[in-house]
Amino acid sequence: MEQGGKMAHGWAARDASGLLSPYSFSRRVQGDDDVTIKVLFCGICHTDLHIIKNEWGNAMYPVVPGHEVVGVVTDVGHGVSKFKAGDTVGVGYFVDSCRSCESCSTGHENYCPDLVLSSNGVDHHHHDGGASASATTKGGFSDVLVVSQDFVVRVPESLPPDGAAPLLCAGVTVYSPMVQYALNGPGKHLGVVGLGGLGHLAVKFGKAFGMTVTVISSSPAKREEALGRLGADAFLVSHDASQMKAAAATMDGIIDTVSAGHQIVPLLALLKPMGQMVVVGAPSTPLELPAYAIITGGKRVAGNGVGSVADCQAMLDFAAEHGVTADTEVVPMDYVNTAIERLEKNDVRYRFVVDVAGSQMDTVA
Amino acid sequence: MEQGGKMAHGWAARDASGLLSPYSFSRRVQGDDDVTIKVLFCGICHTDLHIIKNEWGNAMYPVVPGHEVVGVVTDVGHGVSKFKAGDTVGVGYFVDSCRSCESCSTGHENYCPDLVLSSNGVDHHHHDGGASASATTKGGFSDVLVVSQDFVVRVPESLPPDGAAPLLCAGVTVYSPMVQYALNGPGKHLGVVGLGGLGHLAVKFGKAFGMTVTVISSSPAKREEALGRLGADAFLVSHDASQMKAAAATMDGIIDTVSAGHQIVPLLALLKPMGQMVVVGAPSTPLELPAYAIITGGKRVAGNGVGSVADCQAMLDFAAEHGVTADTEVVPMDYVNTAIERLEKNDVRYRFVVDVAGSQMDTVA
Repeated sequence: MEQGGKMAHGWAARDASGLLSPYSFSRRVQGDDDVTIKVLFCGICHTDLHIIKNEWGNAMYPVVPGHEVVGVVTDVGHGVSKFKAGDTVGVGYFVDSCRSCESCSTGHENYCPDLVLSSNGVDHHHHDGGASASATTKGGFSDVLVVSQDFVVRVPESLPPDGAAPLLCAGVTVYSPMVQYALNGPGKHLGVVGLGGLGHLAVKFGKAFGMTVTVISSSPAKREEALGRLGADAFLVSHDASQMKAAAATMDGIIDTVSAGHQIVPLLALLKPMGQMVVVGAPSTPLELPAYAIITGGKRVAGNGVGSVADCQAMLDFAAEHGVTADTEVVPMDYVNTAIERLEKNDVRYRFVVDVAGSQMDTVA
Repeated sequence: MEQGGKMAHGWAARDASGLLSPYSFSRRVQGDDDVTIKVLFCGICHTDLHIIKNEWGNAMYPVVPGHEVVGVVTDVGHGVSKFKAGDTVGVGYFVDSCRSCESCSTGHENYCPDLVLSSNGVDHHHHDGGASASATTKGGFSDVLVVSQDFVVRVPESLPPDGAAPLLCAGVTVYSPMVQYALNGPGKHLGVVGLGGLGHLAVKFGKAFGMTVTVISSSPAKREEALGRLGADAFLVSHDASQMKAAAATMDGIIDTVSAGHQIVPLLALLKPMGQMVVVGAPSTPLELPAYAIITGGKRVAGNGVGSVADCQAMLDFAAEHGVTADTEVVPMDYVNTAIERLEKNDVRYRFVVDVAGSQMDTVA
């Protein structure tokens, strides 16, 4: 445990029940390169759910979740030039990286093998020389963060901080591959599979890029929502073979956000030759990929994990310019256990965001 | 059946036994745009084997296989400017396309949905107005071909015609994705999975591009061959976990040529972040692709089907410059049934090539 830094009041899970309750701890002493941030809002991501319940077997309790943070800078180290007190800023899925590997050197630090996650991560780089040589990171379900300026992004003033919070992970996760695989221009046709936290943002970014956007969902009930409020151009029910056949070979790219097991062959058939599918949802069972489905048409499947800090900044600037924010249900901190139960049932449109600054953090209501 | 063109003497399969025997037929009348080719050599590809035995359920008997053709131009139509009698030329996996779709318009006609395969294909575009509105194409296991000049490539003089024949399909199938995915420069590390007709050419092209090439094989017996005669830099036995672990995250790209079912997760682990795997072998069972294996590291899996005509020409020019040819076992036409039996058992290093011009085509020996 680090000593001597600012006291933080957060909520933590103590065991695989995943139940969160108040937990106080000290942040590291603000270094020359560090920004101290008062947390305003923090989104709840499916990853948080997996980690607090130790579903990935790597929980280091107590776990303070949260990696979709919008806050206000309260103090900066002597070496900080990018930010000053009063700035509205964001912190996403990670708070440091090795800064020297091939990924870090080429602006893809999100793929650094020594990436320091914002929550339940291991920070080899920053510690105060205490008993342990590294510290377990604690996330945005807390009132204060201390983060290196290089891993902090500026949140444009025009973005509402609650609606912006989910952009820090969900937003960049769909935006980044759109840019990387050139699925970001008028005339392109984008398929978005699944209409949840990631999917609804993929639709919004797709439309903001000027693309034709088709939502593919197993749930016919989502048609109205997709075509209406979210502004998609078309809607396909994934198990309707005639609808799917009529749309065959029409899409330049597909963002697949579905985290339940599903067939990808019918989705690959929607791609034009040399079309690009991007997998951002993580089903627990392997996807079945017959070789013929990609050899015929020279099709492409890639995984994507969030985006770089620069991607994240570009995404926020683009979101501000085009008015893209997440659809949120803002809840107080002491609602978090209920929110997580509802998230497990996909009972949210489309992202829970905890009003950290507006919550009493150190007591159960 | 088309009438009036040049008589051709080939060997055809008549039923799902796949047994080949002499078969005479007439080629189409040479059109203004056409090149008439005397076949010298024709490679035997696994695809031939699948088709003659109707394993893909699409055989249109009699099937004259063969799509790795090197021959000499004997006559050209009035509109032909690219070739003249006496030129050594090649014909690959396809002999026409729609010439107007998005793939054709962007130089990727190998992904045209109306691609006309060289053997057992349906040619909507060329027919002599006979009873049927289209003709079934007959491949290079015959003494003469008539092909539109746009689908004929020039075989550089320095390439031996027998060693060049397999380049027309196997060669371009591995060369084309190397160029497309920038796996073609010094300093890059390429993995080649499987050491057969495709794999041995991938190693040769990889080395000719100046890359570090590692062969990954389930067969330890191939080590000497890979590192010795083929010039690979390293060899990994795919089921040796410690070897595989030591090579983790070192490769920029992998060409997977294996057509038997196999695990790709251990192969994906060999890729650097954002590394590219290209699938060119087609196992009959789906590949298992866990989402985490590509989301972590933002990895990429693409299929590739041969290459464009321009790719094929570039490949041959590059092969001539760097002395890349296939390792072949040249056989007479009447050995073909035995060759196909041996091919089924992978008993060839690395490609059978039929000496068509040197064979008596119209009788069984």
